[in-house]
Amino acid sequence: MDASPLRVAVLGASGYAGGELVRFLSAHPGAQITFLGARDSAGKPLAQVHPHLASLPIASMVLAAVDADAVAEVADVVFLALPNGTTSPLVPGFLEAGMRVVDLAGDFRLPADRYPEWYGFEHPAPGWLGKAVYGLPELFAERISGAALVANPGCYPTPVILCISPLLAAGLIETGPIRVDGKTGSSGAGRAATESSLFASTEESIRPYRVPRHQHTPEMEHGIELATGIAVPVIFVPHLVPTVRGVLITAYASLTDGVTTDHLTDALMASYASEPFVRILAAGEMVDSKRTRGTNVVELQAVADPRTGTAVLVGAVDNLIKGAAGQAIQNFNIANGFDQTTALPTLAVYP
Amino acid sequence: MDASPLRVAVLGASGYAGGELVRFLSAHPGAQITFLGARDSAGKPLAQVHPHLASLPIASMVLAAVDADAVAEVADVVFLALPNGTTSPLVPGFLEAGMRVVDLAGDFRLPADRYPEWYGFEHPAPGWLGKAVYGLPELFAERISGAALVANPGCYPTPVILCISPLLAAGLIETGPIRVDGKTGSSGAGRAATESSLFASTEESIRPYRVPRHQHTPEMEHGIELATGIAVPVIFVPHLVPTVRGVLITAYASLTDGVTTDHLTDALMASYASEPFVRILAAGEMVDSKRTRGTNVVELQAVADPRTGTAVLVGAVDNLIKGAAGQAIQNFNIANGFDQTTALPTLAVYP
Amino acid sequence: MDASPLRVAVLGASGYAGGELVRFLSAHPGAQITFLGARDSAGKPLAQVHPHLASLPIASMVLAAVDADAVAEVADVVFLALPNGTTSPLVPGFLEAGMRVVDLAGDFRLPADRYPEWYGFEHPAPGWLGKAVYGLPELFAERISGAALVANPGCYPTPVILCISPLLAAGLIETGPIRVDGKTGSSGAGRAATESSLFASTEESIRPYRVPRHQHTPEMEHGIELATGIAVPVIFVPHLVPTVRGVLITAYASLTDGVTTDHLTDALMASYASEPFVRILAAGEMVDSKRTRGTNVVELQAVADPRTGTAVLVGAVDNLIKGAAGQAIQNFNIANGFDQTTALPTLAVYP
Amino acid sequence: MDASPLRVAVLGASGYAGGELVRFLSAHPGAQITFLGARDSAGKPLAQVHPHLASLPIASMVLAAVDADAVAEVADVVFLALPNGTTSPLVPGFLEAGMRVVDLAGDFRLPADRYPEWYGFEHPAPGWLGKAVYGLPELFAERISGAALVANPGCYPTPVILCISPLLAAGLIETGPIRVDGKTGSSGAGRAATESSLFASTEESIRPYRVPRHQHTPEMEHGIELATGIAVPVIFVPHLVPTVRGVLITAYASLTDGVTTDHLTDALMASYASEPFVRILAAGEMVDSKRTRGTNVVELQAVADPRTGTAVLVGAVDNLIKGAAGQAIQNFNIANGFDQTTALPTLAVYP
Repeated sequence: MDASPLRVAVLGASGYAGGELVRFLSAHPGAQITFLGARDSAGKPLAQVHPHLASLPIASMVLAAVDADAVAEVADVVFLALPNGTTSPLVPGFLEAGMRVVDLAGDFRLPADRYPEWYGFEHPAPGWLGKAVYGLPELFAERISGAALVANPGCYPTPVILCISPLLAAGLIETGPIRVDGKTGSSGAGRAATESSLFASTEESIRPYRVPRHQHTPEMEHGIELATGIAVPVIFVPHLVPTVRGVLITAYASLTDGVTTDHLTDALMASYASEPFVRILAAGEMVDSKRTRGTNVVELQAVADPRTGTAVLVGAVDNLIKGAAGQAIQNFNIANGFDQTTALPTLAVYP
Repeated sequence: MDASPLRVAVLGASGYAGGELVRFLSAHPGAQITFLGARDSAGKPLAQVHPHLASLPIASMVLAAVDADAVAEVADVVFLALPNGTTSPLVPGFLEAGMRVVDLAGDFRLPADRYPEWYGFEHPAPGWLGKAVYGLPELFAERISGAALVANPGCYPTPVILCISPLLAAGLIETGPIRVDGKTGSSGAGRAATESSLFASTEESIRPYRVPRHQHTPEMEHGIELATGIAVPVIFVPHLVPTVRGVLITAYASLTDGVTTDHLTDALMASYASEPFVRILAAGEMVDSKRTRGTNVVELQAVADPRTGTAVLVGAVDNLIKGAAGQAIQNFNIANGFDQTTALPTLAVYP
Repeated sequence: MDASPLRVAVLGASGYAGGELVRFLSAHPGAQITFLGARDSAGKPLAQVHPHLASLPIASMVLAAVDADAVAEVADVVFLALPNGTTSPLVPGFLEAGMRVVDLAGDFRLPADRYPEWYGFEHPAPGWLGKAVYGLPELFAERISGAALVANPGCYPTPVILCISPLLAAGLIETGPIRVDGKTGSSGAGRAATESSLFASTEESIRPYRVPRHQHTPEMEHGIELATGIAVPVIFVPHLVPTVRGVLITAYASLTDGVTTDHLTDALMASYASEPFVRILAAGEMVDSKRTRGTNVVELQAVADPRTGTAVLVGAVDNLIKGAAGQAIQNFNIANGFDQTTALPTLAVYP
Repeated sequence: MDASPLRVAVLGASGYAGGELVRFLSAHPGAQITFLGARDSAGKPLAQVHPHLASLPIASMVLAAVDADAVAEVADVVFLALPNGTTSPLVPGFLEAGMRVVDLAGDFRLPADRYPEWYGFEHPAPGWLGKAVYGLPELFAERISGAALVANPGCYPTPVILCISPLLAAGLIETGPIRVDGKTGSSGAGRAATESSLFASTEESIRPYRVPRHQHTPEMEHGIELATGIAVPVIFVPHLVPTVRGVLITAYASLTDGVTTDHLTDALMASYASEPFVRILAAGEMVDSKRTRGTNVVELQAVADPRTGTAVLVGAVDNLIKGAAGQAIQNFNIANGFDQTTALPTLAVYP
């Protein structure tokens, strides 16, 4: 680790995840923000785009159009907080210029053949997919260390893969279809103004969406297989509820005969005993997404219901932090030799 | 149907469901409220207990202690909006006095042997269970007609039983375990002041509770079996989200081979074509609990996912209306010869 | 009053107030909706624009472009739920065609000379302003009766004018500047998708807007002068808070020497004793906007603080009902000889 | 400043402000928590009382009953996050034992003669009131430095005194009555379970409370007089809105002739130019409480309305941080020779 900080670019700095990246990086002793990129907000200073960051030293830095050459001149590492489908054309250039990349979009998370069906586009750079490491640090830290390209996981797959993988690997749940029910708040839809994200549309509303075609579905299947070597089909049904932040997933798997809640809980605790961002809840407590808000923590829990042969697996994260910007910083830390907890909060702003 | 209105008592008038009963009954041409009963709020006038009802003609009626004899003197029909376990000691007396009863508690919904495990008490009047009709009008209207004792369903079981029964009966889903994921708001916990129901605890919080021991679980199993003759095990995981009203359930069943979304949708539409309170959503739309708020409507939807062999069944109700007070009025209407829609709203207060 | 219902058009039917107009009119025994007009949503059926109204008999009626001639052919009365500045060009034509108009925009509420400063346009039909009656029924019912053109008040001015006028007329408060602090929810900003109305922008946000230039300011001054003959300057500072519905205003006036809370309360009660939609709160209670939700009720309250020589006047309405669509129906009722309460709710959907 | 950290006790550690004190102090390099005191929660470990703090090294520290002698044995400084009226009996003992005290209750903020009227008790230790310094650092930092007893301000008075004092001192507003309209969320009512703080009571509710007798009224008057030497009467009307955190106040004062918005803004900017926690908004922007959430920042703004002779002064804070625990840490820092910003956040968790 050098004494001088790494020069860092954030592309997509005007969005919610981009704002969180800037907030965390501004307090990171090993990073110096040298470039802020945006599309529609290009030309505006940071303080205008994110008034809550007005007290930062870089508050007057003007967001620039996303220009790969300009980025490469001033940055060693680039965070891509851009829409799905827009980062795959950019990444090869950054890598060829010797930069390191953390990609928060979905463009490098899956095998090439999944993109047409689930993302609606042919992958433009399939040859580069093999260079990407799937950035779920609690499972793949060794591969992330030193990686040039980290595909930062989606918000929903993060808790799903973390709670299912150890139990599947240990044979405590069966390999049949896993049904994943997701709930999240409106920040996951981003900062774009749409009628469905209005306060008036969202308050007192509970509703599913994109059933059963959400693009995080194959990511859950692929991540579980990466971690365990076992292929299981996953169906995923996400729901919007009236929160700003928070993802909570409830997964239903078939329980192996004789397995108890204690077996499941013990397996989770053993897997993540040394992980600073994982909190396993014991019997009598229940996961609460509110306790993860503002933190990089994931809460996990498992309950066995022998009566119906079901394992109920629950996980929660702050979708903008452990589900996006925080995990990206965690990956940055691991890839570049910092302690993985650097600049990342673990204590919720509660209530 | 008499020219003179039925004299009606509401016990548990101080709670949320009780307030809704009073609101609907006060506009019912065939009912006249003659008794309001309460426990802790006895002695207070209605306008103090429910200030939003201050403009009613009966606003100054004083809530009385729950005294069965006093009720029997002045009422022909009694609505019991009381806690689980408190109505079974009362109901035999009311019936013996010749009254008709709509019981919103869980005391007469199940076979006697389920109470110790799921409700924590031995049923005190098992001999009377056989006199109760399970009051889900869209499935059991004939039995409800003329019934002296209607067991009004729970909020969660209402949409679950309605969406699963026709599909199971038609062989479109299999008889294996059904996993039901429920989401609801804080009015379901009632009006009692507890830390977990505080605004500060609830906003930005998504969390499961009572996993997997919620007392509505056997009611779902029993109701489905009543409707179809088929026994299927159900696991039910409820979650609290930051709404006041609204229940949305998402049920995961195994799909029979070859069944499509159209098959499922058509079966639901055929079953409920003439039902004034059922709205079946076609492909391209999604259920939204907000559209049921303030109404006695249930929205239902079914989606097939052949890839994972899953039927996703979604239903939503306003938990205080179709999930409680509204359905109780609907049962009252059917039992006593009124049109089932009398005094019940179908248009949501939206947004 | 004719036996056959009046034929009614709703222009601006796609907005929130338009949706409420349709909901109330569909239950009005003296009205039949014959035309639904919209701008951006023209060509879509009502059930698509307002899915919560899908069970109405007119659910498949297609919204048409706003064409004055087409409206005049099929309607006797037209409700204009259109943006400020768009109704003044339309109204003269409707009146000349013999129709009656209830205008929910601000175009006919003020003297012509106020429009450039407060609305930003020169009034295009100043000669017609004299034909408009300001539609605050509790103060001006006689003028509204039989009126061809009713200017329906704004949401904020409704409670402000109602609570200030009787006290000012009775000399209980002084004629100096009145400071009005308003709070409201996001439905007041309409259905248009803007970043400031997003759930993520609104939750946990309390913020003033348009200080001190809100266009309801001169309406408050003008309405008070219409009611009392006394001109008082008003400053108005509105705030956005995280609700969907509800306006609550708190007005600060100088208290006349010796005046007590009882004097103020008695004056309000005396003024509105026979009004079905006014609820005056006595000492010990406090106004709550939630109790007006879903109703055409206004809650009012007055408190004297002799220590600082201040009268604190509080009022609340549901901004889409008593503050818009409900009051428009009330005006329609009075103008056309129906009982003023026809088709209007007084019992809140609570909680 | 010693090399070894100060030993710190937090009494009232189970409440919301207590939780925030623990969160901030646990990251403070100059403090070590040695005692956690509580009343009802005594005997429980910190992680049970505040599960969101479960990852702290002191998570298993058991909260103890509030025992002054026990505290004095192990702590150099004590934070009192206890109810009003309960700290005045304790403070003399702590001071006599040589400890330093930051009192978050209202017991040492006012002259003795105000307590019976506004707090409902005779002050039990009036002789000690003179030893207390009013802890509003932006105005009284010199007095706070080295102080043994700091009376930490209330949440509402903090922004009120900060925005009014410089303008009054400069003669830009007049000395007549100032009307202060406050809005806040439900965390201000504390963690106690009451019906009025339930989610079901709070959502969609805007309502005033304690009009005009809120105990922060004389604190505003006293603080302004401390800062300016000028006595002005203040009337204060607080309102509850559906947020968890956030106080926003809107004060209405009489504008001195000829004063403009620029004059007001410039005066605020000049007064607080070097203050790290004060953000003055210029014309075209508006204060937003959401931007202060999770921070120790106060946002201030002033607008002149010459038409009505009114100065509109707006301020916002996070009521649990700059309005309570954060300001207490800021006072602790100043009193004990740390940089005032130590351990205090300035960047909001947004959205």
